[in-house]
Amino acid sequence: MKTYTVAILGATGAVGQEMRKILEERDFPVGELRLLASARSAGREVSFRGRTVTIREATEEAFQGVDLVLGAAENDIALRFAPAIRAAGAVFVDNSSAFRLDPQVPLVVPEVNGADALKNEGIVANPNCSTIITVTAVAALNRLSPIRTMVASTYQAVSGAGTGGIAELRQQVTELEAGREVTPKVFSHQIAYNLIPQIGGEQYEGYTSEEMKLQNEGRKILHRPEMAVSCTCVRVPVVRSHSISVTLTFDRPISVEEARAAIAAAPGCRLTDDLKAGVYPMPLDTSDQDLVFVGRIRPDLTNPKGLTLWCCGDQIRKGAATNAVQIAELLFPRA
Amino acid sequence: MKTYTVAILGATGAVGQEMRKILEERDFPVGELRLLASARSAGREVSFRGRTVTIREATEEAFQGVDLVLGAAENDIALRFAPAIRAAGAVFVDNSSAFRLDPQVPLVVPEVNGADALKNEGIVANPNCSTIITVTAVAALNRLSPIRTMVASTYQAVSGAGTGGIAELRQQVTELEAGREVTPKVFSHQIAYNLIPQIGGEQYEGYTSEEMKLQNEGRKILHRPEMAVSCTCVRVPVVRSHSISVTLTFDRPISVEEARAAIAAAPGCRLTDDLKAGVYPMPLDTSDQDLVFVGRIRPDLTNPKGLTLWCCGDQIRKGAATNAVQIAELLFPRA
Repeated sequence: MKTYTVAILGATGAVGQEMRKILEERDFPVGELRLLASARSAGREVSFRGRTVTIREATEEAFQGVDLVLGAAENDIALRFAPAIRAAGAVFVDNSSAFRLDPQVPLVVPEVNGADALKNEGIVANPNCSTIITVTAVAALNRLSPIRTMVASTYQAVSGAGTGGIAELRQQVTELEAGREVTPKVFSHQIAYNLIPQIGGEQYEGYTSEEMKLQNEGRKILHRPEMAVSCTCVRVPVVRSHSISVTLTFDRPISVEEARAAIAAAPGCRLTDDLKAGVYPMPLDTSDQDLVFVGRIRPDLTNPKGLTLWCCGDQIRKGAATNAVQIAELLFPRA
Repeated sequence: MKTYTVAILGATGAVGQEMRKILEERDFPVGELRLLASARSAGREVSFRGRTVTIREATEEAFQGVDLVLGAAENDIALRFAPAIRAAGAVFVDNSSAFRLDPQVPLVVPEVNGADALKNEGIVANPNCSTIITVTAVAALNRLSPIRTMVASTYQAVSGAGTGGIAELRQQVTELEAGREVTPKVFSHQIAYNLIPQIGGEQYEGYTSEEMKLQNEGRKILHRPEMAVSCTCVRVPVVRSHSISVTLTFDRPISVEEARAAIAAAPGCRLTDDLKAGVYPMPLDTSDQDLVFVGRIRPDLTNPKGLTLWCCGDQIRKGAATNAVQIAELLFPRA
């Protein structure tokens, strides 16, 4: 079997660690695995397929001979190493937002627009986590009739801020249990028992950068350049699954029954929609797995061509690491 | 100074206890206070204005000589005692949903439609908690131009399920910290580190009873019988403030500047809207006080006649007890 030399850039973060786990889980044909991170982490040892792999410092030379780079680092790191990755002849599947809106770079959710990945020129971008979860949930509806507008409110887990976000929620809960005051570090305000209605800085007309991603990335992934999205992104005290309340309008009315059937058949989705039985997507049920759960599907009472629904998915897995490995599987199919 | 005999029906619950506290805080002209509850609670002693008051069993006779009854009990209790309250000649300001949509009963948020309270025939209904907070936030905009539609997603605190809801969140967090499993009792699913997208049973087209309140009660309070609302109600692991993400459309476009000015001047509201400075409504900041905080005001990118905003308010106070006492103040003005 043909195998590939794979590098993970940003291997020690929440997403980078999960990428390593998912390469192993999905039995991706890895020959050699290079785990690249900052100089500070170099020398640390982790396990992959029962063998020890030593973290190396990310340098331009580290990409020599690599076939595939999975990027789990911030924009500045992605931008810095992209030329060396290209020069090495590797494909860069990048989870940062640096290249997502570049017209030369496909932005891909495999279940939605997988074919786009094949038109790459050395870089394929992995979308924003809430965007992946939302477009996976609504793609089947967009195939029934084009989505015109989307009003979305997110309920985003602390894992979106990396391992530090998870640690901060846990620490704050412990401090409060002990009757001590908390001092926010990763988040701008206390997150335990609170909600923070800001993710990212201001970008456009009072919307944050995170809020604009659902419109700008969603248009590209769904091939709906006219789609208008009003999004409100909110950090909630949940560990690792994002939830999104979405109200959509379409070119034509779609019945709830038609929508349910389409979502039940959609790849990457699980229909969990039985209010009377207390069955609907919840963060706890969607954590540590790859499907996007969709439920609470009902008519939009404000628009006869609208529907409203609720979806959840694991932010680190389908929202980041799994989606990137799925893209890699499209690019490096098994012989 | 003229004083009144006041009864609290359901005096031992989260809202009933807060009503007692708020009567004292706002120096309502209480002569005698009767605290009524189930036989189980009768005999317990609590403090009011530094004196001890004994909880009595709620019976029909207990309302004799009462001027004002503040209702903090469930619908069945409110329905059972309403005739005796009326026969005693008292006014019943009731927090249950039993009378809210009765055309003979005013449904009142004092800052929004206070004058309606005076047209009562012995009962004034206190609205649903999320509805009070949302309509207080948007009433000033509805005065600028009629609200046509509202798409709302709520982030509702556990206090909405009473003292048992607060205790359950705290207990689950403690159990999980200790590595033990949790068994939900008050809520249908674990609420710690989770979200439950169901409050109330199914009522209409897949919407829950709680979700339909914002449309049905909102129409009556705002005097907009045609207003259409699509609401998604979600329980979140927050203690006692509800938050609502609201997207509104109006008869005419309203600029963000005009909306901010109107909300800054609106009674019962505090404008907290400076994204660059990290200033916006958050549950922790709005707990234990009476104002509804409004922020994140921005254009609706899906509709030129739309706006979107985020608001928070204390569910037990403005969402229930304070609003009821404010209604009582309209009915029993100081001489």
